[in-house]
Amino acid sequence: MLVTIIGGAGAMGGWFAKFFKQNGADVRIVDRSAKTPEIASSLGVDFMHVDILSQHCPSDITEDITDTDVLIISVPINITCNVIEAVGKRMKDGTLLMDLTSVKREPVRKMLECTKDNVEILSIHPMFGPTAKSIRNQTVIFIEISGRRGKLCDEIENIFERKGARIVFMSADEHDRTMAVIQGLSHFVLLSYGITLQNLNFNVEHAREMSPLYEIFTDFVGRILHQDPELYANIQMNLDMKEIHEKFIAAAKMLSSSVLNRDEEKFKNIFLNARKHFGNTEKALKESDEIIEIKLNKR
Amino acid sequence: MLVTIIGGAGAMGGWFAKFFKQNGADVRIVDRSAKTPEIASSLGVDFMHVDILSQHCPSDITEDITDTDVLIISVPINITCNVIEAVGKRMKDGTLLMDLTSVKREPVRKMLECTKDNVEILSIHPMFGPTAKSIRNQTVIFIEISGRRGKLCDEIENIFERKGARIVFMSADEHDRTMAVIQGLSHFVLLSYGITLQNLNFNVEHAREMSPLYEIFTDFVGRILHQDPELYANIQMNLDMKEIHEKFIAAAKMLSSSVLNRDEEKFKNIFLNARKHFGNTEKALKESDEIIEIKLNKR
Repeated sequence: MLVTIIGGAGAMGGWFAKFFKQNGADVRIVDRSAKTPEIASSLGVDFMHVDILSQHCPSDITEDITDTDVLIISVPINITCNVIEAVGKRMKDGTLLMDLTSVKREPVRKMLECTKDNVEILSIHPMFGPTAKSIRNQTVIFIEISGRRGKLCDEIENIFERKGARIVFMSADEHDRTMAVIQGLSHFVLLSYGITLQNLNFNVEHAREMSPLYEIFTDFVGRILHQDPELYANIQMNLDMKEIHEKFIAAAKMLSSSVLNRDEEKFKNIFLNARKHFGNTEKALKESDEIIEIKLNKR
Repeated sequence: MLVTIIGGAGAMGGWFAKFFKQNGADVRIVDRSAKTPEIASSLGVDFMHVDILSQHCPSDITEDITDTDVLIISVPINITCNVIEAVGKRMKDGTLLMDLTSVKREPVRKMLECTKDNVEILSIHPMFGPTAKSIRNQTVIFIEISGRRGKLCDEIENIFERKGARIVFMSADEHDRTMAVIQGLSHFVLLSYGITLQNLNFNVEHAREMSPLYEIFTDFVGRILHQDPELYANIQMNLDMKEIHEKFIAAAKMLSSSVLNRDEEKFKNIFLNARKHFGNTEKALKESDEIIEIKLNKR
């Protein structure tokens, strides 16, 4: 099985190049980065150093790229649909077009639009970043596209399962709605917190070890800030974040007003309603106790 | 050494009753809770079942309570100063008055106001909750009160050090300013997130295992929601939160407007400035990777 990864010189693309190579596939990366030959050599895979979105990209190059069993698109969110458009129509009968993007509605729509019916489609969202040590226990979301699954999809799913990934199936709509909270809201809140630390000119490092909860929370902020701002901008801009941002800001304002008005009854009311909705807070306490304990034992 | 703990039938008071008993002190708890005799018996310590803030509390009771080497006040923040007022003036020469409150400016001021110069004063803030397994590696903040340290303070500090606590010294002002961010802002952000989950009617449990970062983050929300709303109200209302709330809400609004206006340049700018202020984001990535890895291995 030949797996070709567009964007394979990038962090996630490279991660999957290594993963598929280790699992017996022939792997080829396609990337516009000047470091492509170097990265391909360190991964021990073939490469094509080309920008397939360039106006000067000759059609025989695209022809060559799509001459593969599996074509994986691992490029920034905002150019994913353009890349699908560039390669989709040329996909050979019985081959598989696949993407790894963090948003799913548009890429899935585009893949359906740009490919023949006898081309397999698989749209996945690996819920981990390029620093993950392995796929074991990692969640990978598979978008179900009826009628477009074949033996290559099965083979990819088998590899993931064999290596211990936890596959969760859902529709593109459900994915994007869920991710708008799980990723969109969490990133938004952590980034707002990071900006506030800056605006307060608060010394992050100084206070680091005072509280394990603060430490872990702050590390999540730094974790996001260490990564590519474009990825986070694209996630915010390609999920339906308007209502979520508005509701979050409204919640913060309401909570703040109860505090600043010293309205303890209102504060408690808000608190207890949120507790009721949350559900199993005791489990949350226990789970977070374990994480905090581990953090303390590392000191 | 006789250690008397007002509020000793509460969760934190009980934790320290057990701690001092295990470390060789005689311990007595004083509490208005009906469960005081039962809790004292389970801890194996003496007790006085009395509400010292009651108007009918006879002065010989207060006399008896202050007939101790160390008197620890472990009551809700909003009545701490009242309790200090009730017992401070009766403290015997050479004894130690101590509090465990999460805010420090007012209690310290009140202890100085209500005690004679030859009474020792120690104001500490243990940076852990009643579910902590031990004091080992836990941070305990000691407020330095010049001229009011004696041999009982030294003895308490020695016990903490021997059991592996990490003692950090600072002034009451510095404590309250630092905690307004470390605790005040973190709690505020996590609670606002919890309220938003409710207002979005988002099923917390359903999405639980999709992302370890979301899972840990959400467990922190549930951890807070599981605890006493009064504690969190008191922390918000007794630290200077106004500017911090305002700056946080302003940050969220600014970030949101960059997203909703699809202004990627502005988003990146905000992101990179926050990164610059944060400092060592690489360390944050590594530390959070470790925590996430542990969470995955538990699956």
